[in-house]
Amino acid sequence: MTSINLVEKALLVSIQDDVTDTEIMELQDTLSNRIARNDVRGVILDISALEIVDTFVGRVIAQLAGISRLLAAETYVVGMRPTVAVTLVELGMYLPEIRTALSLTHALSQLRRE
Amino acid sequence: MTSINLVEKALLVSIQDDVTDTEIMELQDTLSNRIARNDVRGVILDISALEIVDTFVGRVIAQLAGISRLLAAETYVVGMRPTVAVTLVELGMYLPEIRTALSLTHALSQLRRE
Repeated sequence: MTSINLVEKALLVSIQDDVTDTEIMELQDTLSNRIARNDVRGVILDISALEIVDTFVGRVIAQLAGISRLLAAETYVVGMRPTVAVTLVELGMYLPEIRTALSLTHALSQLRRE
Repeated sequence: MTSINLVEKALLVSIQDDVTDTEIMELQDTLSNRIARNDVRGVILDISALEIVDTFVGRVIAQLAGISRLLAAETYVVGMRPTVAVTLVELGMYLPEIRTALSLTHALSQLRRE
């Protein structure tokens, strides 16, 4: 199950590889409302659970990152596996709007600096 | 009615949801002329009056932000509702060229820092 937790004022969203359409719509709602309501420093999308990725999941990542950026939250994607990066680029999804960090620790320390 | 006001040397443009084609062309003219003429620090597009958004309004935001950016004015979009962010991204409008701020206060303090 995809989950949202608060870690050091950052919303940590963990995306699982069995994420469904319904779950994503709920996630978009929850995420956008919490960003608008809370005083959150940023959003971290953890995709370390994803072993493979397709255009559907790629679009999910792009959309969630896009929403939080539009709502003025710093957004990082962490835990991207090498194969996932290769596949995304091969699919033509360069995701220019997202910032990546190697790990959750890196993302948190970058958010702390801002 | 869509209006333009000067707040701390920033042009504050409030976009209403009944904005028309004619109004937008006037707005583009007024905005570009005032940026070119005045010593303005930046432009703030306030879209808090927008409860829903479509591709037309999305393009209006992108165009106004694009014009002021091309004329070297820092541009912020403020007051975006969660549902508006979700819709824009679902419509594929990631608006990569715009900077958003949660509120007018945030946008003004960011403009002061520059």
